[in-house]
Amino acid sequence: MLRYMTAGESHGRMLLAILDGFPAGLTIDLDAINQDLRLRQGGYGRGGRQKLEQDEVEVLAGTWQGVTLGSPLGLAVKNSDYKIERLKELERPRPGHADLAGAIKYLGSVRGVLERASARETAVRVAVGSLAKQLLRVFGIDCLGYVVGLGELSASAEGLSLQQIRQARSESIVYMPTTALDARAQAYIDETAQACDTLGGVLEVQVTGLPIGLGTHAQWDRKLDGRLAQAVMAVQAIKGVEIGLGFEAARRVGSLVHDPIHFDPAQAGTPALGYTRPTNHAGGLEGGMTNGQPLVVRAAKKPISTLRKGLDSINLDTKQPQAANYERSDVCAVPAAAIILEAVVAFEVANALLEKLGGDSLLEMQERWTAMLQQGARR
Amino acid sequence: MLRYMTAGESHGRMLLAILDGFPAGLTIDLDAINQDLRLRQGGYGRGGRQKLEQDEVEVLAGTWQGVTLGSPLGLAVKNSDYKIERLKELERPRPGHADLAGAIKYLGSVRGVLERASARETAVRVAVGSLAKQLLRVFGIDCLGYVVGLGELSASAEGLSLQQIRQARSESIVYMPTTALDARAQAYIDETAQACDTLGGVLEVQVTGLPIGLGTHAQWDRKLDGRLAQAVMAVQAIKGVEIGLGFEAARRVGSLVHDPIHFDPAQAGTPALGYTRPTNHAGGLEGGMTNGQPLVVRAAKKPISTLRKGLDSINLDTKQPQAANYERSDVCAVPAAAIILEAVVAFEVANALLEKLGGDSLLEMQERWTAMLQQGARR
Amino acid sequence: MLRYMTAGESHGRMLLAILDGFPAGLTIDLDAINQDLRLRQGGYGRGGRQKLEQDEVEVLAGTWQGVTLGSPLGLAVKNSDYKIERLKELERPRPGHADLAGAIKYLGSVRGVLERASARETAVRVAVGSLAKQLLRVFGIDCLGYVVGLGELSASAEGLSLQQIRQARSESIVYMPTTALDARAQAYIDETAQACDTLGGVLEVQVTGLPIGLGTHAQWDRKLDGRLAQAVMAVQAIKGVEIGLGFEAARRVGSLVHDPIHFDPAQAGTPALGYTRPTNHAGGLEGGMTNGQPLVVRAAKKPISTLRKGLDSINLDTKQPQAANYERSDVCAVPAAAIILEAVVAFEVANALLEKLGGDSLLEMQERWTAMLQQGARR
Amino acid sequence: MLRYMTAGESHGRMLLAILDGFPAGLTIDLDAINQDLRLRQGGYGRGGRQKLEQDEVEVLAGTWQGVTLGSPLGLAVKNSDYKIERLKELERPRPGHADLAGAIKYLGSVRGVLERASARETAVRVAVGSLAKQLLRVFGIDCLGYVVGLGELSASAEGLSLQQIRQARSESIVYMPTTALDARAQAYIDETAQACDTLGGVLEVQVTGLPIGLGTHAQWDRKLDGRLAQAVMAVQAIKGVEIGLGFEAARRVGSLVHDPIHFDPAQAGTPALGYTRPTNHAGGLEGGMTNGQPLVVRAAKKPISTLRKGLDSINLDTKQPQAANYERSDVCAVPAAAIILEAVVAFEVANALLEKLGGDSLLEMQERWTAMLQQGARR
Repeated sequence: MLRYMTAGESHGRMLLAILDGFPAGLTIDLDAINQDLRLRQGGYGRGGRQKLEQDEVEVLAGTWQGVTLGSPLGLAVKNSDYKIERLKELERPRPGHADLAGAIKYLGSVRGVLERASARETAVRVAVGSLAKQLLRVFGIDCLGYVVGLGELSASAEGLSLQQIRQARSESIVYMPTTALDARAQAYIDETAQACDTLGGVLEVQVTGLPIGLGTHAQWDRKLDGRLAQAVMAVQAIKGVEIGLGFEAARRVGSLVHDPIHFDPAQAGTPALGYTRPTNHAGGLEGGMTNGQPLVVRAAKKPISTLRKGLDSINLDTKQPQAANYERSDVCAVPAAAIILEAVVAFEVANALLEKLGGDSLLEMQERWTAMLQQGARR
Repeated sequence: MLRYMTAGESHGRMLLAILDGFPAGLTIDLDAINQDLRLRQGGYGRGGRQKLEQDEVEVLAGTWQGVTLGSPLGLAVKNSDYKIERLKELERPRPGHADLAGAIKYLGSVRGVLERASARETAVRVAVGSLAKQLLRVFGIDCLGYVVGLGELSASAEGLSLQQIRQARSESIVYMPTTALDARAQAYIDETAQACDTLGGVLEVQVTGLPIGLGTHAQWDRKLDGRLAQAVMAVQAIKGVEIGLGFEAARRVGSLVHDPIHFDPAQAGTPALGYTRPTNHAGGLEGGMTNGQPLVVRAAKKPISTLRKGLDSINLDTKQPQAANYERSDVCAVPAAAIILEAVVAFEVANALLEKLGGDSLLEMQERWTAMLQQGARR
Repeated sequence: MLRYMTAGESHGRMLLAILDGFPAGLTIDLDAINQDLRLRQGGYGRGGRQKLEQDEVEVLAGTWQGVTLGSPLGLAVKNSDYKIERLKELERPRPGHADLAGAIKYLGSVRGVLERASARETAVRVAVGSLAKQLLRVFGIDCLGYVVGLGELSASAEGLSLQQIRQARSESIVYMPTTALDARAQAYIDETAQACDTLGGVLEVQVTGLPIGLGTHAQWDRKLDGRLAQAVMAVQAIKGVEIGLGFEAARRVGSLVHDPIHFDPAQAGTPALGYTRPTNHAGGLEGGMTNGQPLVVRAAKKPISTLRKGLDSINLDTKQPQAANYERSDVCAVPAAAIILEAVVAFEVANALLEKLGGDSLLEMQERWTAMLQQGARR
Repeated sequence: MLRYMTAGESHGRMLLAILDGFPAGLTIDLDAINQDLRLRQGGYGRGGRQKLEQDEVEVLAGTWQGVTLGSPLGLAVKNSDYKIERLKELERPRPGHADLAGAIKYLGSVRGVLERASARETAVRVAVGSLAKQLLRVFGIDCLGYVVGLGELSASAEGLSLQQIRQARSESIVYMPTTALDARAQAYIDETAQACDTLGGVLEVQVTGLPIGLGTHAQWDRKLDGRLAQAVMAVQAIKGVEIGLGFEAARRVGSLVHDPIHFDPAQAGTPALGYTRPTNHAGGLEGGMTNGQPLVVRAAKKPISTLRKGLDSINLDTKQPQAANYERSDVCAVPAAAIILEAVVAFEVANALLEKLGGDSLLEMQERWTAMLQQGARR
């Protein structure tokens, strides 16, 4: 079982994670993690802070000579903008943030709440997810997040391979599966910034190369769809999650939703064991389990809650109306969210893979992966 | 901490649940549970089985003289249609079901998988949720699920109180917050049935009377939005989850999404402590915590996967194409899903309430509830 | 991951358990479970209730045609002596029981507490453990509990094989690894009964056939020694747990404690991979992991807390001194405790085995077991 | 719910912990943590490393202006002796260590295993426990660990107050509740060192000021005795755990074990609510719950496994007999173990307190503590 917890405040010393249950024997690729961290900081529409921070991961524990030991991994991403001790309390909670609810729940400061609630925390979740992806890659499992909606603009990855999407994403300033909308997106973001407003969007994550049978139908809290939904919805600012057709599935009749099952002997040696589906409306999950088709998860990110035009709020001390406090923020962090979603989805998939294979070591997992495909084929 | 596991197969002896961590001192209202069970079996579009089963809960453990003891509760819903031992194996997995993935994962029978994967299991989850609602009601927290979409039809609860919705739901044959669409819905379902097809829909759950500060922003796996998303997505056939505006939030600019914070001294004694919001786009959750506004969760249910017209499948033994097996099923179970969603949401909210208040006994919880509102008001 | 919860009161309808995560493909041997249940009810020194109850397990869920499905198992042991609703409240809490602490914690009745706290609950834990043993046996892992101390009497299993101990246990009226002390034990128990007093004792559990590497050193809450200690100490009336030499290890110098490591090529094909130890002072666990040697766990059971001579207590209502209430009870349940300890140890070992092998199905586990030994041998 | 994970290797950069669920509002006393760290490094019989390391805690996350935020705490203890990357593999596993089992389990190096399995990891567990003690102290709960056995020497704290024991411990070179044995202990350790051997011992932890009702009887894995046993047994080198009389309870008749219940109105305002017990053989726990009396836990620590005289082992590569590797080590770390045990016990008690009180903030907990005692008194 893979599990992790994070610690750290937005302007504290660092973001920390401990990742427990990671198998022994993986040579960690630090560059790949740092590349993900850079992607998380990028995308058009970010504010000043992203230039201040040049996130780099430090592996504080869990490796010897660059290789994982089966011990818990300690990960840190330092905050260049470490200044929490000099920061002041806020008295005008910002709508859309944890400010009000958190201050009352903990009977404490708004500052203390916002520092932890900030999406800055996702830096180290991206590092955790990046490790998960390195593990998945050993088995040929590939995981990619990208932007399919930016405010009212929408893009589609329909018909593109993950490789093609990755290429497009690396070129698009808003991490879309196409660069065709870049100019419009840039203008859109600029106009929104000038209006002192903010933008949200829709992210999609695909995972390919999956075997049949990760997750289970057997108990409600072990279903992979449920776990993915939790992981995704627990990302800051996410307000919706879909798998496969998602809400569209609710509008169609059954015969236009369910994916017929075919068998192609030529593909019997792949992780899907030769079972093919002419459509993938299920998004790769049936009965809480992977069915060998690509996993497709979508999420809705609301616009950033900190607006320069200061939404209506109240002063917590006087209870009198006053504009909300303003903390330096971005106009649009939708591209970053694609990277974050990719990370949390990768984590859940890696966890499900470890549950399937056991997994004290890569060596053991690899042998079991092969055996699993053979046993599945005989079934 | 509240937790539960279920056991039981669709045509086994019974569905079972053990619910651990429930406070002492609640007089269980069996009729209320059975009323929920009947609602789960009702709604227009159900097939023959619902007439066979007249679900009733049995409390097997955890009470004395009808009152909870703080001990784990054992709950059972018997299957009138208990015949699993006479049932045969299926060799043609049904698209949309756990059949294929489960048989390969467990290297076993399709029968064994579908018996557990079936939504019949939700009968006992409804019983668990019904108990959660009885607990919430002590604190004035009310939880209601209803249908806002049925295939291409859609209804809205906008502007209605929970009491009004409950009344309408009790009259609507499809559990909508209005009876205005009943005739169209009936015709729609009938036509779909004649076409040997099935329908899905959209469910909405509202929870009112919530205090500020259930859930937390502090750690990813303790955020209430994440937990709700897991609970909802882990219900059979659910493919999407939204909180508040959901995906619509991704399309709007920030100033049209975030809910301004006002203060009304006249309401200072309510669980929301006088903090009012002219809108509730957040659906009652900010930063993974309740903010005192009604919780609004929506979910997309795909159409039933068992079609009388038999989708394309293969024979697992020969790997040759063949129509999928047909097991007796419904045309539309969307109304039932509203009751199930209500149950799983109520469970998560009750769990968050117990985490906030502690909660070995109702007496203790009630005193703490009052103290919490007073402390919150002083903050 | 294997997990279970129980529900049920001492004089309620039944004891229940849900066991989640059990692999598919095991043909359940009901007789073996019932045999364990009978053993739990036996041994010299039991009172009247054990004659009233003839415990039998019912598998309520999780199987088809007698074979496990990978679904959660529902287990029940009915109470012949079901009368909780007719029973009265106790007002004089019994020293040594949960009575006082529970009534105050839950702000409720003593009756409600004692009904759940009673060791009657272990009937269904024995059933759970019995299933765990059936799983372990597939891999040649054998688990046996027996009595090595009865009040001031002590017995030793030194030098005996598990088979020999099992034979002796089946003959001894107090489940000792020898019948030599039976006469003395009987007289001792009789005298204690006449003195209206009770007896405790010491239990030992051995597990043989274990592979190297169940459990882990990597995180405190995943160490197998810690998990075993929890499971054992969480059995009613247990006040001490030892592994291997236990407290004796604290008195010796290191050179007389640590077990030298030898290698015997002739045994390379066994689960211990040929690593032999001239002594087993570690009791089969080093660094929180099995080391291939027999697991040896010992536990101290205090005497039964309900004494016919009524210990000093107070009346909870008046707070005046009064003798404690008397509820029908045994004089000595030490033999029963050996069976219970065997069950909870077997559960933890089975859980650790599942974590090592993964384990959706027996088929998969068996193939991985073989591969594990081969990989271990190559290391 | 309080939970923590640690990371870090013995000669890695640092030991890390993330502690989640700690309430807001506590001003952290760093000196107190560092004082505990120093105690962990002290006591007669330590080797060279303890002089190399001068452990100090760093709070990496979770506070603002020295006060906890309700956010997870990040804690680090740096290794002065950070050199893991220069260290070599060991090929001769040391008996009593995780070396052999870990290398086979993870199909990896002995080095990687021993670096994590080392008791050096307890440095950060002591920091976690130190925070738990600071929390407990707010409620007047005091927790102290000390040495009652050193090889064949034994000491007793009978009749001493915690304050007296603390004073004696601070003066004794081996952390005993008396200095009377110091000279003998010193000679004993010196002789053992000269014999190239090592010593173990017995630790005792007491917790006073406890309320009635922490922990529960209701479910096996929530019993406080079980949780304490896990925490204690999961400390490196611990082979036995006792609560109260422990194994002695197994030898006595019931009337000499169970603690009569008295009531003293003059003490009705204390956490024990006036319930007094002339004896405390139960060690403060009945039915898995605290009963208001001092908690008494004892543990057996085996002698250090690394012996300068090199126990028999084998060469893992050749499988030929060879003396075990020697890594720099201590002769006797029994005093340190008292500090570690104190920490892990404090953690479990603090966790149980948080479960009882809820506990997002100290303010809330304090008000509930008072109310709990009042409600308990009315019961």
